[in-house]
Amino acid sequence: MSVVAGCPLCDEPGGRVVAQGARWRVIHAQEAGFPAFYRVVLTAHVAEFSDLPDDERAECMRVMVAVERALRDALAPAKMNVATLGNMVPHLHWHVIARFDWDSHFPSPVWAEARRARDMAREQDVQARLPAAESAMVAALARR
Amino acid sequence: MSVVAGCPLCDEPGGRVVAQGARWRVIHAQEAGFPAFYRVVLTAHVAEFSDLPDDERAECMRVMVAVERALRDALAPAKMNVATLGNMVPHLHWHVIARFDWDSHFPSPVWAEARRARDMAREQDVQARLPAAESAMVAALARR
Repeated sequence: MSVVAGCPLCDEPGGRVVAQGARWRVIHAQEAGFPAFYRVVLTAHVAEFSDLPDDERAECMRVMVAVERALRDALAPAKMNVATLGNMVPHLHWHVIARFDWDSHFPSPVWAEARRARDMAREQDVQARLPAAESAMVAALARR
Repeated sequence: MSVVAGCPLCDEPGGRVVAQGARWRVIHAQEAGFPAFYRVVLTAHVAEFSDLPDDERAECMRVMVAVERALRDALAPAKMNVATLGNMVPHLHWHVIARFDWDSHFPSPVWAEARRARDMAREQDVQARLPAAESAMVAALARR
């Protein structure tokens, strides 16, 4: 298992840990304006998705899809956004973000400029439904 | 096969077609500042990755990884960025983008604000290497 000193995702979870496997963890990230922002973080310090062996890549994909499905079922978002960038932190992590047509940036990417003010009441409504989403996520990941 | 009238990715290729399968195509996208910007576009009008049956999702992933590997081998980018957003066009497509530490936005996402002016000479150098990258891509996709 490769661990790199000084890498923020080797040193720390990077958010609230929702589920932990041997090769990956699912975290909830605190990102202003996006209450349902999760990340699937590889345990090993690997930069690119194509660096993974086939079985680990398939497993990573199954975890990502389980997170996406749980969020869709619990939150009925307008769209799911999934991305692995890693330009700042080249330790493989997939952003899995439920987007809503009322969120501050929709339909722009979360990394673009905001289009409107945040709707705190609706964000809180989403936050209130995260425990149900996360329970379903954990159950789905345990079934795999 | 679901086709939706008025969907830009049902109506048109969406870019220069590099490889065409039954269920997907790989296109080169003209995106200012990012000479090696490709998309894997599903043929069917499907919104979310988790809507796909397991085998089609696995196939889509293999295509995406083949594109990523060909770009890495030919271009030695600083980082690969892979994302499916679809907030504007909810027809499943994966952005597969080779990023360079000199590009106008690096290390920011391509959707964020630019950090510096474009380096046209280096962009042209990348463009000159795209045919080799695409030949390798097509060969890898034919081998699958």
